[in-house]
Amino acid sequence: MAPIRNARQIFNEIPTDYPVPGRTVVYDTSQAIDLESVPLHGGILLKTLVLSIDPYLRSRMRDMNIKSYMPAFQLGEPLQNFGVGVVVRSENPAFKAGEYVYGVLPFEEYSVHTQVEDLYKIENNHNLPLSAFVGTVGMPGQTAYCAWKEYAQAKKGEVAFITTGAGAVGSFVIQLAKRDGLKVIASAGSDEKVAFMKEIGADVAFNYKTTNTSQVLEKEGPIDVYWDNVGGEALEAALGAAAKNARFIECGMISQYNVKPYPVMNLMNIVGREIKIYGFIMLSLLPKYRDAFYAEVPALITSGELKLCKEDVSKGLESAGEAILAVQKGTNTGKSVIIVADQ
Amino acid sequence: MAPIRNARQIFNEIPTDYPVPGRTVVYDTSQAIDLESVPLHGGILLKTLVLSIDPYLRSRMRDMNIKSYMPAFQLGEPLQNFGVGVVVRSENPAFKAGEYVYGVLPFEEYSVHTQVEDLYKIENNHNLPLSAFVGTVGMPGQTAYCAWKEYAQAKKGEVAFITTGAGAVGSFVIQLAKRDGLKVIASAGSDEKVAFMKEIGADVAFNYKTTNTSQVLEKEGPIDVYWDNVGGEALEAALGAAAKNARFIECGMISQYNVKPYPVMNLMNIVGREIKIYGFIMLSLLPKYRDAFYAEVPALITSGELKLCKEDVSKGLESAGEAILAVQKGTNTGKSVIIVADQ
Repeated sequence: MAPIRNARQIFNEIPTDYPVPGRTVVYDTSQAIDLESVPLHGGILLKTLVLSIDPYLRSRMRDMNIKSYMPAFQLGEPLQNFGVGVVVRSENPAFKAGEYVYGVLPFEEYSVHTQVEDLYKIENNHNLPLSAFVGTVGMPGQTAYCAWKEYAQAKKGEVAFITTGAGAVGSFVIQLAKRDGLKVIASAGSDEKVAFMKEIGADVAFNYKTTNTSQVLEKEGPIDVYWDNVGGEALEAALGAAAKNARFIECGMISQYNVKPYPVMNLMNIVGREIKIYGFIMLSLLPKYRDAFYAEVPALITSGELKLCKEDVSKGLESAGEAILAVQKGTNTGKSVIIVADQ
Repeated sequence: MAPIRNARQIFNEIPTDYPVPGRTVVYDTSQAIDLESVPLHGGILLKTLVLSIDPYLRSRMRDMNIKSYMPAFQLGEPLQNFGVGVVVRSENPAFKAGEYVYGVLPFEEYSVHTQVEDLYKIENNHNLPLSAFVGTVGMPGQTAYCAWKEYAQAKKGEVAFITTGAGAVGSFVIQLAKRDGLKVIASAGSDEKVAFMKEIGADVAFNYKTTNTSQVLEKEGPIDVYWDNVGGEALEAALGAAAKNARFIECGMISQYNVKPYPVMNLMNIVGREIKIYGFIMLSLLPKYRDAFYAEVPALITSGELKLCKEDVSKGLESAGEAILAVQKGTNTGKSVIIVADQ
């Protein structure tokens, strides 16, 4: 069989603020691959089907000398993120051609993996769409599930405030909070997202672009649990509306990744209100919760008790640059996924 | 017996920034008390011997409509704080004349207490100076002891950074950290305080007014435990030098009480470094640790294993206004105490 195209999305330039499609990341079609003869060295050859576009990717687009929780992307090399692939060929007895795999994949149409420890076979007994495995049943869902269980200390009747509540993480957190009997206040950046948050159970849902967050929390709070995906002004509003002994789950600060940080002025409330703030990375919690997650979550989706978040689907690897920017700007209308190939 | 003077320090005006001696608090000698005939209504009459001046008092000098963890001082009424008194007369069988008592006392030379639930008799088997009972053996010591035990999760070989390390709280925390086998970095605002911090065991001690905190932490960190008494720039430096999974114990933010808050710009590190931040009020932790505290701490002082902090002693209730300002500015040279009367 003749070599075929193996397109890639290359990390080309460190952005100074928002990533620029075609410059921060460049689509490259110069490579080819022979699927039958490419050496596997005992590993597996994957065809990439789905790639996830997540907010945290911005933090990896940095100078390699700046340490952080995830390694920086290497200039000139493909991006990487959670995705789903199908096994084309395998020299590893644990994997067979045609099986689906979830894990961190390079932004390439095909890739060879000799290290397979962090690749998980997707059993999919519940017949979910493959894209769910990078959303509610993947990294974002695990983020919501693990941290809520670990840090929320939720008590029936308490009040939770959840930011980016229409996203893959936030929409799951809303539903977890409701299952625990909390009153849920949720925010997002469009009226369509507000409608979706109400649909999945938020008691109070508002568009933070047209409604003042502090005023909502003043009226509907004080809040016992704050799920922070945005930082900045929302964090300040939450600190201002925090109940005594509130728990703040610090999942991300999307409002701060691309611009000059917002100066939060009421950190003193941490002391007086005895607030506990939990910064975390999902991968640190996952080993403790992985089995429970896979035992519980797919079944809840099948039974209809847990709703999948909406998806913002882009077709083809070439669309990654625009999708990355949309997620940083919040103009995506659901969990951003790239369908690299249909099968 | 004829009535005698019962001088008081009255809360007179809410300060806009630093408290102003003679204006924020006014010394008033217009009242008299007859020690033999003043009605006790089943309570006790105390002569005030020692009053503590603590940083947190500033937070009580506010509009009564602003809720906070401690009630606001009432305008026209005496201040209150932890102190030591001696029983002059008692109608309560649990207290006898001549016994020493620790608790929250009004800023008056004499006071009648009908509510005695929160007054504790000082046994003082270890023959400590009475002023120690508002310092290392009182509220500040309990603050250090309870929160360190509850939140530090200290592991031998880790690194701690402790602010206001020459004060009543900080000096105890330095010694607790050393007892747990940590490397201790400590800061304070004068060279004399730096010398004292070294004397009690700090491995690295520096004057934050003449030495850049971030540079010290860059060289001597990263830090696993941060004891925050100051907030603002020090908190920002600690966030910048935090190790993965660092614990931040938020005891106070003295740098932020009297001025426009400092904009901390690197809150994002909370997420990436999985930092846990514990705001607390000592009184919430004390019930859990009180017995252990009194069993352990006085004995450690007597044996010389735990050094008392230095004291900045003012004589006479009239000195309270200046002492309050000094503690807010940090110009005191040790735990600030007012010796209201010798006996």
